[in-house]
Amino acid sequence: MTVIVNLNENRDSPQKPSLDLLFELTKTDISAVNAVIMEQMQSPVMLIPQLAGHIIASGGKRLRPMLTLSSAKLCGYQGDRHVNLAACVEFIHTATLLHDDVIDESDMRRGTATANTVWGNKSSVLVGDFLFSRAFELMVADGSIDVLRILSRASAVIAEGEVHQLVTANDTDTKESDYLEVIEAKTAKLFAAATEIGPVICNRSPEEREALETFGLNIGMAFQLIDDVLDYSARQATLGKTVGDDFREGKITLPVVLAFQSADDDGKAFWRRTLEDMEQKRGDLKRATQMLEASGAMKATIGRAQYFGKKAATNLEIFPDSEYKRALLEAIDFAVNRSY
Amino acid sequence: MTVIVNLNENRDSPQKPSLDLLFELTKTDISAVNAVIMEQMQSPVMLIPQLAGHIIASGGKRLRPMLTLSSAKLCGYQGDRHVNLAACVEFIHTATLLHDDVIDESDMRRGTATANTVWGNKSSVLVGDFLFSRAFELMVADGSIDVLRILSRASAVIAEGEVHQLVTANDTDTKESDYLEVIEAKTAKLFAAATEIGPVICNRSPEEREALETFGLNIGMAFQLIDDVLDYSARQATLGKTVGDDFREGKITLPVVLAFQSADDDGKAFWRRTLEDMEQKRGDLKRATQMLEASGAMKATIGRAQYFGKKAATNLEIFPDSEYKRALLEAIDFAVNRSY
Repeated sequence: MTVIVNLNENRDSPQKPSLDLLFELTKTDISAVNAVIMEQMQSPVMLIPQLAGHIIASGGKRLRPMLTLSSAKLCGYQGDRHVNLAACVEFIHTATLLHDDVIDESDMRRGTATANTVWGNKSSVLVGDFLFSRAFELMVADGSIDVLRILSRASAVIAEGEVHQLVTANDTDTKESDYLEVIEAKTAKLFAAATEIGPVICNRSPEEREALETFGLNIGMAFQLIDDVLDYSARQATLGKTVGDDFREGKITLPVVLAFQSADDDGKAFWRRTLEDMEQKRGDLKRATQMLEASGAMKATIGRAQYFGKKAATNLEIFPDSEYKRALLEAIDFAVNRSY
Repeated sequence: MTVIVNLNENRDSPQKPSLDLLFELTKTDISAVNAVIMEQMQSPVMLIPQLAGHIIASGGKRLRPMLTLSSAKLCGYQGDRHVNLAACVEFIHTATLLHDDVIDESDMRRGTATANTVWGNKSSVLVGDFLFSRAFELMVADGSIDVLRILSRASAVIAEGEVHQLVTANDTDTKESDYLEVIEAKTAKLFAAATEIGPVICNRSPEEREALETFGLNIGMAFQLIDDVLDYSARQATLGKTVGDDFREGKITLPVVLAFQSADDDGKAFWRRTLEDMEQKRGDLKRATQMLEASGAMKATIGRAQYFGKKAATNLEIFPDSEYKRALLEAIDFAVNRSY
């Protein structure tokens, strides 16, 4: 039996959420971003373009660079600096993905993480470092100390958030506030940096700059919360994605935090065994999914995502209507109501 | 029997090489650098100052920041920017050390690397990322795009050099030129950046800037070559350091490259077994040391270091005599003739 989580029940979107308008509006610019990425990851050391190409090609939606491009356009940007800076954002994102691939001996014993099996830990680290440095070189070529400040700050906060997550890993007693702090640092902060770059390169007012930064932070929070929900959703499977990665890795995400809080002794023991002691057996993932659903933890997490989505929409209110504004509003809808 | 490599035979220094003058001249500034380091590695996430503090405290001579400080003073620098920038250089160096600690499953099978046993791969990576980002935040606070350009370029080159080294690892057929390229990228480039910062913050002429950059590159080359020599020197043991790390890790350094080239079939088979196939048994390190000595590979490597040391001294010729110049000349002597 497969548990189907109805992701659209209790959610906002009247129609299928998508990034179509954002894709359409940034199509030409994203091609330019991809060209910059291809060019900047070149190196006579062949392993670098190989490994970087692998992760960049397999890597998703280019959501962060699209947000940089569209927030610049929302502010009426006419130049071409946004293309290189969007590539910087994607490089930093890719570097963090590569560094996330790094595994410890303990993980190997658990037989989970295999993302870096082909190239190994060391390659993931060093190619990540290369992309990270390249991002800074590109920013230096752009020449804006403000942009450098935003992205160096974001990078430090991301690393801090990742270490924070590491030290709270496998702790089912994690507080919601701690969890939200972690995802704000490790995910939302880069979204915020991505969207703040637009008003910065347009020299817009501090209010607009703050509005777009906060918009990025809020959409990033919503995006990560739904990511956590989707990891326990059977819908994922139909889309060719893996379900249960977080569970197998013993990651404590908000659905688990909330389910653990309301669980009885039996339930608490189940979460401790599977996610703290990492003793998982056949059927545990299914039971976990059912418990998350039955306890209302999934719905409650979606509720948090909707809250951040609404805040993100509010942040855009100071901007007059435009197709870029509509695309960003659709992106919020996508972040909150997507099923992939 | 212990093989004693006479490090001073065939070498330049009439008296015991030391960094005493450099230490003396930069004493106050280095205290300030240490204070900046302590302050900047703080984080509410305790693992960060713990791990960073461990590696920074255990970490050596502060040679790179001393070079930044003294090259600034050589150029007559009067302000205090050099202190923060010297801390940046040390942070980047520390981040690369932490990332060097990362090991692969294959290394674990060999039972070598244990530097990160206490904290694990993932912590080494993330704390390294944090220090690296902090370095860029400090540079941004300093505000010089030139300095940012120098250090972001150096960081990209270092990562590229490390990947290059990774893909040529365990290849006894490595060419001398390939090896020199690797150490120029992974070691000498950061020395060059460290010494170029001085003239940059003093707005000195392009000639002086280039002279100090090249000085850094050359002293860095000499320093790394002697590092490679010392790893096979019994003198190290008397100083409480480990001998044979490179051998046990299968690292191909210049002494090995040169010994392999001149080896007979038996000798070549020995190097292939121990460093390519990583089949090492008791007595192999002793035999390796004897072969490196007997083949003249150790002396030849020292000869290369002397060559780079002489070039470094030449680079300083355009500067008038001063105690800082004398300290830098002594640093060259130390890099080439040191026994620790």
